[in-house]
Amino acid sequence: MPDRFEILQKDLAGRIGRLSTPHGVIETPVLMPVINPHLQLIPASEIVRMGANMIITNSYIIHQDPKLRDQALEKGLHKLIGFQGPIMTDSGAFQLSVYGDIEVLPLQILNFQFNIQSDICVPLDIPTPPDVSREQAESELRLTEERLIEAAALDRSSLLAGPIQGSTYPDLREKAAGFLKDLSFDVYPVGGVVPLMESYRFRELVEVVTAAKKGLGSGAPVHLFGAGHPMIFALASALGCDLFDSAAYALYARQGRYLTVRGTWKLEEMHYLPCSCPVCQEHDQKELMESQQRIKLLAMHNLYVSLQEMKLVKQCIREGSLWDLLESRCRSHPRLLDGLKRLGSEGQWLEGLDGSRKSTFFYLSPESSFRPEVIRYARRIERLMLEGDVLISDDPEADTAGFDHVLHFKPPFGPYPAELSETYPFNAEVPENPDDSALKQAARNTKRLIEANPKARFSIRLRSLPESIGEK
Amino acid sequence: MPDRFEILQKDLAGRIGRLSTPHGVIETPVLMPVINPHLQLIPASEIVRMGANMIITNSYIIHQDPKLRDQALEKGLHKLIGFQGPIMTDSGAFQLSVYGDIEVLPLQILNFQFNIQSDICVPLDIPTPPDVSREQAESELRLTEERLIEAAALDRSSLLAGPIQGSTYPDLREKAAGFLKDLSFDVYPVGGVVPLMESYRFRELVEVVTAAKKGLGSGAPVHLFGAGHPMIFALASALGCDLFDSAAYALYARQGRYLTVRGTWKLEEMHYLPCSCPVCQEHDQKELMESQQRIKLLAMHNLYVSLQEMKLVKQCIREGSLWDLLESRCRSHPRLLDGLKRLGSEGQWLEGLDGSRKSTFFYLSPESSFRPEVIRYARRIERLMLEGDVLISDDPEADTAGFDHVLHFKPPFGPYPAELSETYPFNAEVPENPDDSALKQAARNTKRLIEANPKARFSIRLRSLPESIGEK
Repeated sequence: MPDRFEILQKDLAGRIGRLSTPHGVIETPVLMPVINPHLQLIPASEIVRMGANMIITNSYIIHQDPKLRDQALEKGLHKLIGFQGPIMTDSGAFQLSVYGDIEVLPLQILNFQFNIQSDICVPLDIPTPPDVSREQAESELRLTEERLIEAAALDRSSLLAGPIQGSTYPDLREKAAGFLKDLSFDVYPVGGVVPLMESYRFRELVEVVTAAKKGLGSGAPVHLFGAGHPMIFALASALGCDLFDSAAYALYARQGRYLTVRGTWKLEEMHYLPCSCPVCQEHDQKELMESQQRIKLLAMHNLYVSLQEMKLVKQCIREGSLWDLLESRCRSHPRLLDGLKRLGSEGQWLEGLDGSRKSTFFYLSPESSFRPEVIRYARRIERLMLEGDVLISDDPEADTAGFDHVLHFKPPFGPYPAELSETYPFNAEVPENPDDSALKQAARNTKRLIEANPKARFSIRLRSLPESIGEK
Repeated sequence: MPDRFEILQKDLAGRIGRLSTPHGVIETPVLMPVINPHLQLIPASEIVRMGANMIITNSYIIHQDPKLRDQALEKGLHKLIGFQGPIMTDSGAFQLSVYGDIEVLPLQILNFQFNIQSDICVPLDIPTPPDVSREQAESELRLTEERLIEAAALDRSSLLAGPIQGSTYPDLREKAAGFLKDLSFDVYPVGGVVPLMESYRFRELVEVVTAAKKGLGSGAPVHLFGAGHPMIFALASALGCDLFDSAAYALYARQGRYLTVRGTWKLEEMHYLPCSCPVCQEHDQKELMESQQRIKLLAMHNLYVSLQEMKLVKQCIREGSLWDLLESRCRSHPRLLDGLKRLGSEGQWLEGLDGSRKSTFFYLSPESSFRPEVIRYARRIERLMLEGDVLISDDPEADTAGFDHVLHFKPPFGPYPAELSETYPFNAEVPENPDDSALKQAARNTKRLIEANPKARFSIRLRSLPESIGEK
C-alpha cells in the first residue's frame, strides 16, 4: 500500500501532515466531529459549512439498527450520513468498554465497515481502562493483538486503524506500538485514555502517548481517541497526535456546558458569551439560556471553538511557535501544567523530532528552560573550541580589548559566541530578571564549556552574577 | 454632581462598574472603538451590531473641518456620527503630541465639546511622553493642571475627564492623580502611555498606572488612553482600568495586521484564520488577502476579537478568576510576563482592593505565589493561636493520635487548620510538585506560625521536606 501519510512541517513532536483517504486528502491535525447516525444534532451539511472536513461515526450503532444497516449497505455510508468527505468509523469498542459486552463479532463489524465504504475502519479491540492490574492490561493487550493480526491480513480498500492499548503502563504502550508498526496499519489510535482526560490526569496522558509515539516512530499518523475538549488540542498536538474526535461538542451541550480553550463553563453561571462565533454574536447569555434551540446552539458554539483551536494549533506549527501556545494553554489548570512539565522532561526525545525553523524564542516560565532549543544547545556547547583569553559577559558595552574570544551570556543558554547574538535562538526575548530555572541551566552550560576548554582562560563579567555559577 | 460611577463587583484591582452618561448607562470595563469623523471604515451602525455600546471620536478633527463643525453644532455630535449611545471625545492632545502644535485654544475646544453634546469631554492637556527629563515632566504637568483647574470650574451637563500625566515618574503620576481627585472630574484618563505600549514596556505601564490608581483611590473610573490591543486588556483591567479606546482595530488593519489576544500576525504570513468571527468564518486566509474589502474586513475581525476579549475579562471579574486569565495572557510575551511580575510585587495594594468571593484557586506558575490570597494568609497566619502538641503534615492519612491540633500543609500557603481543607483558598488546585516560589512562601509562613506560638510543640511530617523550611 502506498504511503498514506506525508509530513509537511514539524514543531516539537507535532506536525502538519496530509492523510490520503478514499474520499479525499485531509490536512492534519484534524478534528473529526462525532455524528450520531440516529440523530444529527447538527446536520452533516451544517458541520461542513462550519469548517469540518472529516467526521467520525459509529458503525456498531448502524449495524445494530436493521433499517440503518440496510441503507448503509445499499447506498454506502457517505450517502447515509449525507457527508462526502472522509468518514472514520468506530467499531463498538466504546460500547464494549461501557456495557462490558456487545452483540457482534470482531470480523463481522470490521467487514461491515469495509462493506459500507468507511474511509478509516477500526477493528474491535479491547479498550483497557487506566489503573487495572498489569496482568489484566497484558492479557487484554494479547487479545487485542490477536484480533489486529487477523484484521491486518484482510483485503481492503479502506484505511485500517491499529489501536494501541496498554492502560497506564507506558512500557506496555511502547511495546504494543512497536508490535503494530510492523503490521500494515494506516492510522494508530491511542485508546482507553478517555478516563485520564475526564479526570484531568494529563501527566499520565503525556506519559502513555509519548510511550506509544516512541514505539511507533515519528512517521505514523496517531489518533487520540476521545480527545474532544479544545483545552488539550495544543498539548496533544505537541505530542504528535494527528487525529482528534469530538463527541464533546454535543455531550457538553446536552449538559448545558459551554466550551472554551481555557476550560468549561456552565451556561447558567455565565454572564457574557465571550466568543465571536455566529451563535454568540446573535445571542446574549440570557437569550441562549431561554432558546428552544439551546442544545443545538450550544453544540454549535462548542464545535466552532474546537475547530478554531485546531486552526490555531496548525498556524503555530507552521510558524514554529507551538511551545509558546502551550505556555498559555497549559496555564488553564494545574493538571495541564503537570502535563507540560512532563512533556518538558522529554527534552531529548523532542529535540530529536523538532523542526529547526522557528519564530523568536520567548522565555515565558521556568518550563521554557526545557524547550528543545535549550536542550540542543546544552548538548552542543562542548563543541565550542576556545583558546587564549575568553570573556563571558552579559553587558553588550563591555570592554573586550585583549580578549581572544568574546561570548555573550543569556539565561537559559549561558555563554554563546557574540557574533550569534542576532541569530535564533540566542536572539530570544527573555524577562528582565531570569528565574532560577534559567539561571541553573545557564550555570550548567558555563561549567560544561569551561571544562571542555582546559587551555582557555575565562573571565566572567556578569552584571548580576547568579549564585549558582560554578555549581553543578 | 451625583455619583456617576458605581462598582458592582471586584477582582484584583479590576471591577465591573456602571458609568452613567447623558446618553445611557454603560457597564465597565468597556472598549470604545475610535470612529474617524471623516471616514467611518466600519460605519457606526455596524459597530453597534458588532456589540460596541460606546464609542470615542476626535473633536479636534470635527472642529477643524468647517462642514463637520457646522453640522455637529447644528445637529449635535450623535446625529453627525450616527450613534445614539454614549460618545467620548478627544481634544486634539494626540495631534499636539504628534505635531507639536495645534490650532485651537484649550477652552475653545473644550467648550466645543460641550456644545456638540459629547458625553465625556477631555480638556486639552499636555501628553508628556515617557523618558523626558523630570523638569519637563513637572513643568508640563503644571501646565496641564492649570488647564484642568480652569476646565473643572465650567458649567456642564457632559461628563468631564481629568487626564493624569507625569511621564514615566510614578511619584509624579501619583501626585497628579491625588491633585485631580479633589477637583470635580468624572473620569480619569491615564495619558501619554501609548509609547510604552507600542514598545512593549509593560512593567513600566504597570508602574505608572498603579501609581495613578494609588493617588486617585479605588472609587474613580480610569481610562487607559490609547489601549486598544486585546493582548493587554486583562492586565490593564486587573490594574483597575475601566475605559479603553481602540484605534488599533483600524490602524492595524491598514497595515495588513491581524489581531489576536496573544499578539499580532501579518495577514500575509498566516496560513489559517484561527477565529470564529463572521469575517473568519466566511473567508479563508487567501480569500481575505485577495478581497477588495480587505482592510474593512480585517478591521472587523480586529474589532470582533477585541470586543470578545473584553467580554472574557468581564466574565472572569464576575467569577473572581481574573488572575487565572492573567496567567494565560501574560504568557504571550516576556514583556507581558514582566508586567505580571510587577503587578505581583503590588501584593499588599491588591490585597486591600481584591474582592473575596472567588472560584477555585489554581496555582499556575511561580507568579501564583504573589496572588492576594497568598499575601492575605501570610499576614493572618500569626493569628492562629495554638497550644500543646501540633502536627503539621501534607499527608491526609497521617496518624494524628495524641495531637491537640492538626494542620495540613500545602504550598504556597504552608500550614493551615485541617478543618479548612475544603474551604477557599486552601482547596486550591496545585501542581504535583511545588515550585521554589511556592515552597519558599510556605516555609516563611511555617516559620512565622512557629514563632507566634512559642508555647506549642510542633511536629512537622512532610512527605517531601522542602529544604528551605526553617530558613527565612
